[in-house]
Amino acid sequence: MNVLTEQDIKHISVGAAVLGTGGGGDPYIGNLMALAAIRKYGPVRVVTVDELDDNARVLPASGMGSPSVLVEKIPSFEQLSAPLKAYEQATETKTDVIMPIEIGGVNSLIPVAVAAMNGLPILDGDAMGRAFPEAQMVTFHLDGLKPGVAAIGDEQGNAVTIRPVDGFWAEKLARQVTIAMGGSSIVCDYGISGKQAKQSVIPGTLSLARKIGALLTTQVTTDIHPITQMLDILEGVKLFKGKATLIERRIEGGFTKGEATFEGMDEFNSQTCKLFFQNEHLLAEVDGHPVAITPDLIAVLDEETGMPITTEGLKYGARAVIVAFPANEKWRTEIGIQTAGPKYFKYDYEYIPLETLAKERIKR
Amino acid sequence: MNVLTEQDIKHISVGAAVLGTGGGGDPYIGNLMALAAIRKYGPVRVVTVDELDDNARVLPASGMGSPSVLVEKIPSFEQLSAPLKAYEQATETKTDVIMPIEIGGVNSLIPVAVAAMNGLPILDGDAMGRAFPEAQMVTFHLDGLKPGVAAIGDEQGNAVTIRPVDGFWAEKLARQVTIAMGGSSIVCDYGISGKQAKQSVIPGTLSLARKIGALLTTQVTTDIHPITQMLDILEGVKLFKGKATLIERRIEGGFTKGEATFEGMDEFNSQTCKLFFQNEHLLAEVDGHPVAITPDLIAVLDEETGMPITTEGLKYGARAVIVAFPANEKWRTEIGIQTAGPKYFKYDYEYIPLETLAKERIKR
Repeated sequence: MNVLTEQDIKHISVGAAVLGTGGGGDPYIGNLMALAAIRKYGPVRVVTVDELDDNARVLPASGMGSPSVLVEKIPSFEQLSAPLKAYEQATETKTDVIMPIEIGGVNSLIPVAVAAMNGLPILDGDAMGRAFPEAQMVTFHLDGLKPGVAAIGDEQGNAVTIRPVDGFWAEKLARQVTIAMGGSSIVCDYGISGKQAKQSVIPGTLSLARKIGALLTTQVTTDIHPITQMLDILEGVKLFKGKATLIERRIEGGFTKGEATFEGMDEFNSQTCKLFFQNEHLLAEVDGHPVAITPDLIAVLDEETGMPITTEGLKYGARAVIVAFPANEKWRTEIGIQTAGPKYFKYDYEYIPLETLAKERIKR
Repeated sequence: MNVLTEQDIKHISVGAAVLGTGGGGDPYIGNLMALAAIRKYGPVRVVTVDELDDNARVLPASGMGSPSVLVEKIPSFEQLSAPLKAYEQATETKTDVIMPIEIGGVNSLIPVAVAAMNGLPILDGDAMGRAFPEAQMVTFHLDGLKPGVAAIGDEQGNAVTIRPVDGFWAEKLARQVTIAMGGSSIVCDYGISGKQAKQSVIPGTLSLARKIGALLTTQVTTDIHPITQMLDILEGVKLFKGKATLIERRIEGGFTKGEATFEGMDEFNSQTCKLFFQNEHLLAEVDGHPVAITPDLIAVLDEETGMPITTEGLKYGARAVIVAFPANEKWRTEIGIQTAGPKYFKYDYEYIPLETLAKERIKR
């Protein structure tokens, strides 16, 4: 995967929707944006974290806000590049490599489009190893790196540059600006050196997304179901299989928040699963017991096609397989759980690793 | 008034509270900030609009947000200067002259403090000729000038730079940033040339504030009451004399909004006056009839001392003289009324000049 093919982009959009745990927006939109950019501006080279020069300037680019809004107002090429330019002007630097801040549907491919437009390579890695709803929920923050300058743009042509005192202020200010911009924006922040990237980036996640996407979209000839193969790769757990019977979704404070209820099918017959989300799925309960808790990853897959369903795309009556994967070890530390664990999102649980919850569930 | 004395500053704070029509925060706070800055950093020279070089770079500095919040968290010297520095960095310019964006209690003296700290002169003029609650309510906007870069800072040390597409977006984005910053901020925006200042600035308003302040605070020996003298200077009207019997005040969307009711005294006995405000007084009604309508100026003065009372400082039982003055002719145009007239603030009146309303009232 030295240069991204159109096929790669399609696969990344699907795999990133799995790793994006329901958030990050419609993968189809990310797919369209990245393909359009590559067709217009030329191919994007992929560099691994190992290949980075220590002094290389690495800059994440991402969409911020409610995915419900983002899909309604797809960013223009101009909007996509404005924050990069504003960032470079404010910091008086030139960027060498673009990276995804998270592996989520749109946000894994917005940086690919930005890279294509500016003739820059894309980094094979991100700062979450999944998607999270808030800007400070990045491995950079866990490692004590400051967001530095954050540059934000909208489709009107407004550009805002923030020099926050820390990651929480970056989130607070950027979120309010995003709300004022109508609910979605494009952001460049947490510009880092190659050396810092080697310390803090979760490597290989773009490749991983591609691999998962390839698995789920390619007609396979083996007897092993693609979802089962994926669970093997990600050391994941099948949490539930059922039909969506109630979906409550609201746009609140610049997020898409809500709950989804599933009635069990097959081996889960007569059980009920509830998913709680804030852009991303953050908590899964079966019959009132937690079965997967943030920062571990929860994904909803179409039962028939195996394709991931976003929190936006989930509809009444959808038949789904719900799976979960362990979060990267960086998230399972004290500061990781403090930053993105259940208490932060006001869920009244202690964090318990997915594997432990699975064992407890077997005992019940 | 070539160099501002401590006495001048005191007088400006009082006079600007009159011209500030109840908004702009506690004049005492503005007084304290400007005095502290001058004592620490040295005197501030005053330049008139006529004296400006056409190429001079003139930059307004002001406080944004709810005055109720501003008085609770007085800006530090560092906070006061951060937006100027952020503005200069973002625009790659050096500022020659600081100016008040409005003549309101705190906002007429915050720029004096900023000027003192940076060894710059202050312009004798502003962009409202009074105080208004929103950022696009400036003569610059009426003359088609764009806000350009807006730089915003808070007491935490956060700095935000906005490049808005127009004045309305500047207001919207800066207001949300100010709310995220806790409800008050310091802003530098609408940087203009000396030539543009000559076209758009309302000249002499700092001197006018000083003159009014001197009048109201100095023990006079003539038989003419200081308030009467002030009404002569400003071609104003005495609207009402009465006692505050009901004050409703709330902080909403970054503003202090509300209504105040007064029961009449002396020649206004058995009449009732209602004032409607959003940071500033915007509408005065007596017995249900409008007697002064924005953009004309409405001020509340302590009946005994003649000192102005802000919308923040107004208390139940206060005995007050309510006066009004005609707005600068720039505000009485079609675009002026569209920008800051009664309809904009959702008051169900057409704008009628103060003088016309006074004649109608005599007929009733």
